[in-house]
Amino acid sequence: MLRHVVLFKFKDGTSPEKIKEVEEAFASLPGKIKEIKKFEWGTNVSIENRSEGFTHCFVVSFANEEDRKIYLDHPDHKAFGNVLGGSLDKVLVVDYWNVH
Amino acid sequence: MLRHVVLFKFKDGTSPEKIKEVEEAFASLPGKIKEIKKFEWGTNVSIENRSEGFTHCFVVSFANEEDRKIYLDHPDHKAFGNVLGGSLDKVLVVDYWNVH
Repeated sequence: MLRHVVLFKFKDGTSPEKIKEVEEAFASLPGKIKEIKKFEWGTNVSIENRSEGFTHCFVVSFANEEDRKIYLDHPDHKAFGNVLGGSLDKVLVVDYWNVH
Repeated sequence: MLRHVVLFKFKDGTSPEKIKEVEEAFASLPGKIKEIKKFEWGTNVSIENRSEGFTHCFVVSFANEEDRKIYLDHPDHKAFGNVLGGSLDKVLVVDYWNVH
């Protein structure tokens, strides 16, 4: 599986309602984009104080690079970008092959 | 499951041999610490240029917070810290509950 790890840090002052909207919009993508083979997410509960302000972690899994490409270009993925609407302070993305 | 996501960015000039040593030392922990219920890792293959220089992603899964505590305090985990030996430029840690 090709894991797509996405971290979000919202801008200070982002309302809980907006954050919930973003969470729900992201979590709706697996129902819309069949190339998503697995999806999970959660909010940071680390006790190590090394999260660099990131509060949300989403992990989207694909079978291959082609499916990742379809996801990235998908209209529903782009519509999700519009939901974000400038609410993010930082985004970090790391993908890796779970082959080890 | 409690997911423990760890990102590494090595210092410029870190030798491939040192990086391999760190990878192998981290990957040896599941064989030494029984509280690790699942382990996977890989190197960044994102095409989005949003990795902030992080090249390695490790995901360690625990059943609960008590097991995470045992892991963090475990002598073999601390010995792994010694293997790192100042080779890291940045570390980022985000934990989340995979309950969604």
